Amino acid sequence: MLSVTNSTHMTADTDGSRRIAILAHEKFPHEAKTATGVIRYGSDEVVAVLDRDRAGDRVSEHLPDAPDAPVVESMADAPDCDALLIGIAPIGGGFDDSWRPDVRTALERGCDVVAGLHYFLTEDEEFVALAEEHGAELHDVRKPRDDLTVSRGIADEVDAEIVLTVGTDCSVGKMTVSLELARAAADRGVDAEFVPTGQTGIMISGWGNPIDRVVSDFTAGAVEEMILEKGDERDVLFVEGQGSIVHPAYSAVTCGILHGAMPDKLVLCHEAGREVIHGYEDTALPPIPDYVDLYEDLAAPVHETEVAAGALNTVGVDDDKAARAAVDAYADDLGAPATDPVRFGPDEILAALDLE
Amino acid sequence: MLSVTNSTHMTADTDGSRRIAILAHEKFPHEAKTATGVIRYGSDEVVAVLDRDRAGDRVSEHLPDAPDAPVVESMADAPDCDALLIGIAPIGGGFDDSWRPDVRTALERGCDVVAGLHYFLTEDEEFVALAEEHGAELHDVRKPRDDLTVSRGIADEVDAEIVLTVGTDCSVGKMTVSLELARAAADRGVDAEFVPTGQTGIMISGWGNPIDRVVSDFTAGAVEEMILEKGDERDVLFVEGQGSIVHPAYSAVTCGILHGAMPDKLVLCHEAGREVIHGYEDTALPPIPDYVDLYEDLAAPVHETEVAAGALNTVGVDDDKAARAAVDAYADDLGAPATDPVRFGPDEILAALDLE
Repeated sequence: MLSVTNSTHMTADTDGSRRIAILAHEKFPHEAKTATGVIRYGSDEVVAVLDRDRAGDRVSEHLPDAPDAPVVESMADAPDCDALLIGIAPIGGGFDDSWRPDVRTALERGCDVVAGLHYFLTEDEEFVALAEEHGAELHDVRKPRDDLTVSRGIADEVDAEIVLTVGTDCSVGKMTVSLELARAAADRGVDAEFVPTGQTGIMISGWGNPIDRVVSDFTAGAVEEMILEKGDERDVLFVEGQGSIVHPAYSAVTCGILHGAMPDKLVLCHEAGREVIHGYEDTALPPIPDYVDLYEDLAAPVHETEVAAGALNTVGVDDDKAARAAVDAYADDLGAPATDPVRFGPDEILAALDLE
Repeated sequence: MLSVTNSTHMTADTDGSRRIAILAHEKFPHEAKTATGVIRYGSDEVVAVLDRDRAGDRVSEHLPDAPDAPVVESMADAPDCDALLIGIAPIGGGFDDSWRPDVRTALERGCDVVAGLHYFLTEDEEFVALAEEHGAELHDVRKPRDDLTVSRGIADEVDAEIVLTVGTDCSVGKMTVSLELARAAADRGVDAEFVPTGQTGIMISGWGNPIDRVVSDFTAGAVEEMILEKGDERDVLFVEGQGSIVHPAYSAVTCGILHGAMPDKLVLCHEAGREVIHGYEDTALPPIPDYVDLYEDLAAPVHETEVAAGALNTVGVDDDKAARAAVDAYADDLGAPATDPVRFGPDEILAALDLE
């Protein structure tokens, strides 16, 4: 059966039981954010990483805390599996034609192929034909569904508490923080779920709307739809934020998520040492207290919220003592508890969210 | 020659010299915002309005200040012209099939057809075939171009001063205020131009990106592109704002325009008596001073701006004395000069913008 989809629930029928290979040629692990995110946080079993530069290595050599798997040269060398995920994205989100043989091999073996690129596999004639011939599925997780619409402004009517990560900039760790908090809360017995809003989060979770690709008028609505779908099933939803409210290019997405999700609490994410907007070096980050005011004041007319805690990404800080000092200074700036949940664990943040 | 387009410049080759008919069945004039906007502000010559409920009337009976034209039953009764504009939109932006005979007649007469609906004429097989057969063009002004991308954050590098209308809500008059100010400034010898961001503005101007329909990540970029195109040719650009920064559904678009346009000055538009968000009756409008702070504080990290003046829509206020009192109270709330530019003329606003 052919099934070429861009459904929200790409893995609903195989949740937690799928075996996957992940393509990350020449980029694993440090430039392969999607690959490492799926390995660390996904529920699928990773049977191989494809990286022609590191073939013969083990995943555990590069990601000591993650489940192990072999790194292989090509799809031809990968063990039996259910799907191939494209785990890297070049600037611009294009499809690198050097990946074509791997995708072809996957489809010929009957494996589904999942990508979060701006280039859509479901519009590639060769891939569509191969998928049909071999009964495989193509999933473009960055292709929004056709039935999205405007927000009704009712996300606050669900039973769950909504916790949204917001940021001082792009790429400061909002997705990771949301995933870490959802996992840690669940470990403590809280009925919590991660709500993805970007392609990596969607690949990790197997569902979700790619908010940065929807029609601009539907930005808030596409978030609201996810809250309404999950909000009465769970006690807490950790919504993945995007961008920053002062980002020259992406603030529209940030603002739409802030109003569409109607969060009860915010966790402000920042990277230690970041002083200018990434890629917009003329634009300085405002002081941290200004972010707190901006996010709270902008949210309030739609739904009152507060920055309840901060998450500081200290990956660039060498020693723990300096990282701890950076966290303390950040907490002072925020006027709220803060930590680096990856380096020091999420306890302070969970406590601030009353989820101990 | 077939030409099925969604170009920014739909009338570049015929600017100012086109003869048009406007379809506004059962809605003219009060529920036909696009039709009345094009009649009042467009540069095309309007040869007829199609409204089956008012056939035999004159436009001047309903819009005393606008150029006159007959109201006719159907396209078959319209004089010779170059194009038919769809001047109304049902809720949801669909195409009403009762309009099909008029569109068919227009195409058979070789007239172009221009629409700003969510339903795209260029995807209607019958219309595409008729356009091809009769050498007519179909223009879907709400269909974004394919080559839009993210903002570079450089709209402030153009020579022109950028004046953006922002609002307390949707449908308070931002487009009308921008058009009135651009026209009045031009009348005073200022080299000014209106920059459209929505379908009606695009129909009036014959160019522009429909910001509410672009990919959310490109919201700011689609505005910036227009500023960069026009900003070194003109001394002042009046950018049409959309939505409101506290709108539960549309704030993403508002925020993207605010950061993409990098305005030097803002004109805050409001409707006298409006107390809750239109269509979201549970959401009260914040106090006017809060809007001033929100717009200025949100813009500042990307580009410093100020609310330089206010425009109050007093269409619902019966007598001029009460309207004047409402304007005065609004100016007090704003801490800036204000007027109703339609009722009282735009002098106070132009003075506040240093464009007397």
